[in-house]
Amino acid sequence: MSAPTLAQRVASLVRPEIRALSAYHVPPASGLLKLDAMENPYQWPAELKQQWLEILSQVGINRYPDPGAAAVKAGLRQLMGIGEQYDLLLGNGSDEIIQLLALAMTAPGRTILAPEPSFVMYRMIATFVGMEYVGVPLDAEFDLDLDAMLAAVRSHQPALIFLAQPNNPTGNLFSVAKIRAIIEAADGLVVVDEAYTAFTDADSLALLDEYPNLVIMRTLSKVGLAGLRLGLLIGHPAWLGELDKLRLPYNINVLTQASAVFALANFAVLKAQTQQLREDRGLLAAALAQIDGLQLWPSEANFVLVRTPAGRARAIFEGLKRDGILIKLLDGSHPALRDCLRLTVSSGSDNQRLLASLAAQLA
Amino acid sequence: MSAPTLAQRVASLVRPEIRALSAYHVPPASGLLKLDAMENPYQWPAELKQQWLEILSQVGINRYPDPGAAAVKAGLRQLMGIGEQYDLLLGNGSDEIIQLLALAMTAPGRTILAPEPSFVMYRMIATFVGMEYVGVPLDAEFDLDLDAMLAAVRSHQPALIFLAQPNNPTGNLFSVAKIRAIIEAADGLVVVDEAYTAFTDADSLALLDEYPNLVIMRTLSKVGLAGLRLGLLIGHPAWLGELDKLRLPYNINVLTQASAVFALANFAVLKAQTQQLREDRGLLAAALAQIDGLQLWPSEANFVLVRTPAGRARAIFEGLKRDGILIKLLDGSHPALRDCLRLTVSSGSDNQRLLASLAAQLA
Repeated sequence: MSAPTLAQRVASLVRPEIRALSAYHVPPASGLLKLDAMENPYQWPAELKQQWLEILSQVGINRYPDPGAAAVKAGLRQLMGIGEQYDLLLGNGSDEIIQLLALAMTAPGRTILAPEPSFVMYRMIATFVGMEYVGVPLDAEFDLDLDAMLAAVRSHQPALIFLAQPNNPTGNLFSVAKIRAIIEAADGLVVVDEAYTAFTDADSLALLDEYPNLVIMRTLSKVGLAGLRLGLLIGHPAWLGELDKLRLPYNINVLTQASAVFALANFAVLKAQTQQLREDRGLLAAALAQIDGLQLWPSEANFVLVRTPAGRARAIFEGLKRDGILIKLLDGSHPALRDCLRLTVSSGSDNQRLLASLAAQLA
Repeated sequence: MSAPTLAQRVASLVRPEIRALSAYHVPPASGLLKLDAMENPYQWPAELKQQWLEILSQVGINRYPDPGAAAVKAGLRQLMGIGEQYDLLLGNGSDEIIQLLALAMTAPGRTILAPEPSFVMYRMIATFVGMEYVGVPLDAEFDLDLDAMLAAVRSHQPALIFLAQPNNPTGNLFSVAKIRAIIEAADGLVVVDEAYTAFTDADSLALLDEYPNLVIMRTLSKVGLAGLRLGLLIGHPAWLGELDKLRLPYNINVLTQASAVFALANFAVLKAQTQQLREDRGLLAAALAQIDGLQLWPSEANFVLVRTPAGRARAIFEGLKRDGILIKLLDGSHPALRDCLRLTVSSGSDNQRLLASLAAQLA
């Protein structure tokens, strides 16, 4: 019997559902104006940056980080007004938190449920941890289809339900009454993903007091700190205590911790940038509405979903790229997103550049 | 039927093996001389630190990181002399890489095997991902017990075998002939964990050319960058391509990437610190050998394993703490480590302080 080859070994050891995956593809963005990933375009004022560097100069990068990241949590708690009855859990972006939630509950036949289209990592991470994934189509206005959601909850009894509020990539808020109805119908844990909470007045924190099967996920990525990779989960200690056992103990590194603490202490700067983006979102949407052939949806996030004339989304995406602008092509990713593009709201001048190129493509 | 309580929901949703865990406990170290975690005690020269801060000032923390971390990989490849026929995979410390390896292969009945005592995360992460764990006792010299290892490989057919070389917490190198025999007997993937490679002349890179079921794991934590949390896996593209599908796409943040690239470009400084620690290891070991009642083992890492007189390890650990020194108490963690303590090699003055306190406890 000859020894197995490399390919035979990989095929026999790596789970078939992983082998069947393609790696998550991030398109190259070098030299392009990045309007694809909901990044805040603004830098910090020079004085603030200098203060930050002084903080970093004191950080011991030769020492392991505080495993509990106590200072970061205190800053988040204060900024977000999180009561002492709730705990915080930190991850390298929301991605790591989704994975923790899924790992805590995975078992044969266990299901993750989410409306579709929504954030793609819910489905991907279900596969990573060996859970089933059920996507329930949104209704024609991209709101939750309550009947369909409740039927799916009854039939699949999902261990985890993810509701992005506002939703990505559609940009809208779901009806709170529908969110409540789903939480009430679910025996599983409902995760309201408030990644874009900085761009809307709505939030679900108060619901934590009512529902024992609710946790709320947030991130600092959309308020100007995408490079730090800091996500957080807010919820009852009974849930977070279990998740914390699964957390790799030094998951948040010393530079992220020091930078997050500093940014939270100076959050007024990021808050003002966010406010500016909210105003510019209105201006961008109004201008997009003036471009013949574009349909657009109202947005409570820092991006706008638009639909191009039938069959033209990819050509417009490519035309923008020739003009040096990278946006997100959604056409082909989900039937409900046929002919759709997602545009990140950026600075006034970036938005003008986007509008000019879009208008030229559609002229 | 009344709605389930919070406790009932947690109990029914969180996997029982997770509920049965205790969270990984990191003892508080505030104000103590940390000789518990194999950290490099040295700072960077002021000029180097200034250059590093200038690099960080140019980093866009508002932008997502390069998902492929190409510059970091290029620096590691050059430093470590890794041929183009092998790929690199990066994680937030070795911990995330162990988790990726396990997630890629987990299935009911699948096993992770490691000699014991060894790095505790192998066992913990097996539990996290729902794999069985088999620990095979080392022999009396803390070398691999080849007969026992081969018997366990045959009977359990482990998907993953972890061999730490040198081993933590024992500090010795395993016999290379035994490592070869285990790789040759295994149908699963063997991970040689070279976390402490900077402190020994031995390495296993050349074995990659011989064995299709071998990968090598390393980290920058022990050479002075524990705070960055950067681990790496080196191996055949056929393995790493599958693992990369499971990697959360932005797992290495912008500050880690920029700092690692800078540190790798200036590695001579860290290399000199490492060399100093190797010399000081010899001095520390020689001095420990002079303390009556201490047994010690030869070390190829930046720590030394010692055995105290029977029943006294905890009291000595507590006595050191009263003197402001934190070490690792191993007594109670594994039968082979009865009465044992692990001492991180630090600067000459730190080591002197440790020796004085130890001598006083044992006088």
